[in-house]
Amino acid sequence: MSLREDAEKIISSAIAAAKPDAAVASAVKLAGFPSGKLVLIAIGKAAWQMARTACLELPGRISHGVVSTKYGHSEGELPGIQIFEAGHPVPDENSVLATKAAMEAVKNLSSDDAVLFLISGGGSSLFECPLVPLEELKSLTQQLLSKGADIVEINTIRKRISAVKGGRFAKLCEPAQVFSIVLSDIIGDPLDMIASGPAYPDSSTSSQALAIAKKYKLKANDETMSLFRKETPKKLENVTAAITGSVSQLCNAASLKCVELGYDPFILTASLTCSARDAGSFLSAIARHHAKSAKSLAFIAGGETVVEIKGKGLGGRNQELALSAAAGISGLDGVCIFSVGSDGTDGPTDAAGGFVDGGAMERLKEKGIDLFSYLADNNSYEALGAIDGLIKTGPTGTNVNDLSVVLVNRR
Amino acid sequence: MSLREDAEKIISSAIAAAKPDAAVASAVKLAGFPSGKLVLIAIGKAAWQMARTACLELPGRISHGVVSTKYGHSEGELPGIQIFEAGHPVPDENSVLATKAAMEAVKNLSSDDAVLFLISGGGSSLFECPLVPLEELKSLTQQLLSKGADIVEINTIRKRISAVKGGRFAKLCEPAQVFSIVLSDIIGDPLDMIASGPAYPDSSTSSQALAIAKKYKLKANDETMSLFRKETPKKLENVTAAITGSVSQLCNAASLKCVELGYDPFILTASLTCSARDAGSFLSAIARHHAKSAKSLAFIAGGETVVEIKGKGLGGRNQELALSAAAGISGLDGVCIFSVGSDGTDGPTDAAGGFVDGGAMERLKEKGIDLFSYLADNNSYEALGAIDGLIKTGPTGTNVNDLSVVLVNRR
Repeated sequence: MSLREDAEKIISSAIAAAKPDAAVASAVKLAGFPSGKLVLIAIGKAAWQMARTACLELPGRISHGVVSTKYGHSEGELPGIQIFEAGHPVPDENSVLATKAAMEAVKNLSSDDAVLFLISGGGSSLFECPLVPLEELKSLTQQLLSKGADIVEINTIRKRISAVKGGRFAKLCEPAQVFSIVLSDIIGDPLDMIASGPAYPDSSTSSQALAIAKKYKLKANDETMSLFRKETPKKLENVTAAITGSVSQLCNAASLKCVELGYDPFILTASLTCSARDAGSFLSAIARHHAKSAKSLAFIAGGETVVEIKGKGLGGRNQELALSAAAGISGLDGVCIFSVGSDGTDGPTDAAGGFVDGGAMERLKEKGIDLFSYLADNNSYEALGAIDGLIKTGPTGTNVNDLSVVLVNRR
Repeated sequence: MSLREDAEKIISSAIAAAKPDAAVASAVKLAGFPSGKLVLIAIGKAAWQMARTACLELPGRISHGVVSTKYGHSEGELPGIQIFEAGHPVPDENSVLATKAAMEAVKNLSSDDAVLFLISGGGSSLFECPLVPLEELKSLTQQLLSKGADIVEINTIRKRISAVKGGRFAKLCEPAQVFSIVLSDIIGDPLDMIASGPAYPDSSTSSQALAIAKKYKLKANDETMSLFRKETPKKLENVTAAITGSVSQLCNAASLKCVELGYDPFILTASLTCSARDAGSFLSAIARHHAKSAKSLAFIAGGETVVEIKGKGLGGRNQELALSAAAGISGLDGVCIFSVGSDGTDGPTDAAGGFVDGGAMERLKEKGIDLFSYLADNNSYEALGAIDGLIKTGPTGTNVNDLSVVLVNRR
């Protein structure tokens, strides 16, 4: 079990390094809030963790606030804060309730007041008050996800049919100042895209939204189409933003842990965006080539791959990447490939990702599992579950993309 | 144009190193033919080149023979040899004519006679005498190619409906000895798969063929289905095989040339098999991460990617890989990605592959070419052609898979 143990160690070190606590604490200290009320709004998968840090750093200073995070991601009460858990990746009624509470909380503020706005990945779904019926919103999101649209495209669409996204939430806070602290989960850190940029001038345009609707042949009603044509704020005077956390931190920390464990690490990239399945195949091809290396090696890739959902199975992009790598490393000694989401939840499952080694393919066969049929059905969770190939961390309190690693162990 | 010039130099060195001449010469010297007739049969994209070397090494010794190569791949007459050019990747009437000539040439041989059988990639299509109507064979091949089947699957099917594949040609040569020299173009060099193994005991089975037919929902008539159920030779007493050439040679030679040009090279893999498009995306992610390196770097991948044909455009896997990498490296200075087939012909085009740099995306826009629509239409040839991004080598006389390279030039 040594490869698996190494994997677990690399994963915990990387995730620990990507936690927002230290970054939020120092950003809060530097903020220089005005003398009036201070309202805390925290959204995303790391919302609770970020809000707790802010509460600890600013004792008694926060007048009231709202946290909106994913189900199972709150760890208890925070003083003066309403805490909501809501749907992700598809927003639900609780997403809307939480968002309405936040909109209420920033009403009637003066220019002496301030909003501390803590944003992390997942915010697109967890902070939403749609201008269309929730069913229409769900349908659009699911159409885009299932057709393999990337997060940039999905957010361009979402902004136009939302009361809070694309800079619109910051408008609602006026004339109060908004201090936003952003834990980035999008490659390249575009501030208007993370959580669909509720407090950042929107760089995406109406005509881009219309082009995306055309590209994916979106089914949308007339009201929705007319919203696609309305512009979002292109300028915001009341917002200051600090960005923290990144997939590079995740990769660098993984790399350092690899050195400690005796592997010679190589970071391939921190911006992987191809399909999960082909990423698994490519990484397995790298593993094959280096399987006979005299030294122990680690190849590290950060990023966020995509899955085209064609089947009805359960899984996530990290599990699909790992499962699809199993065939390519089958029979190799001392080789494993694993992939995890830094937020600890991969797709709609309780796993953070998947792990396979040179024996995985054989064990799948023994269990009567045909790798290729399971992949075709996007059923990576069940296949990996059968061979002890799921990695479970629980919610981690951070969210800075995914980490995929090849280990070649020669010790 | 320095990046492009470097690319051309790397490509020519790599292809030169992978030529079969030296290997064929030494294999022929070692063969120890019996005293009777010596018949030369050469098939594949490198057939002419391999046959010429054999003629030069064995002056006056070859009694008669047949070469079957791709259109445009013959470079002239060879003494006593019938030369055919035929269809690839889909066999045509000339493939059948050439194959019938070869079957005729090995008829009525004695145990004192020998067949020198030179095999290179493309042989599956260029050496074929189908047991079904040619239209049925074409339909099966095109169904498999367009659904993204890999070469192993395609050959498993082809063997069962052929008079010469899967060891059947060697059976026809009995009692003569068959000396086969194989220039490998399949990852891992499985001798029964290269050119569909006409002179090698077949390890693929009838039941695998039936499973593939099911997996891709092949439309096939009843006669074909009954051929799927017939077994191929599992044992051949009269065959000696030597294998030569490999994608590793191609990668190693590219790597040496990179050093000479001032790049620090790293071979990622010699067995890439994922989709061409995602390979391009993955390589561009690697390029982005290392674009600010202080040293000049080269990342090298050998293998054979696959293209799922959904559009009606013209292109090949190497052109598609290069074109899909253009977006990911857009705007980067001193960075290029190129990919070429070592045989000099990529898909049904006159190009060997494609080349893109950090300015390619911008130049495409200037020409009014939307990268993503062209990719969706599998129209990489036209898009790359518009920005001088096609690499043309002409037929090279060898065929050992593809070479894909990322260059980061810091000089």
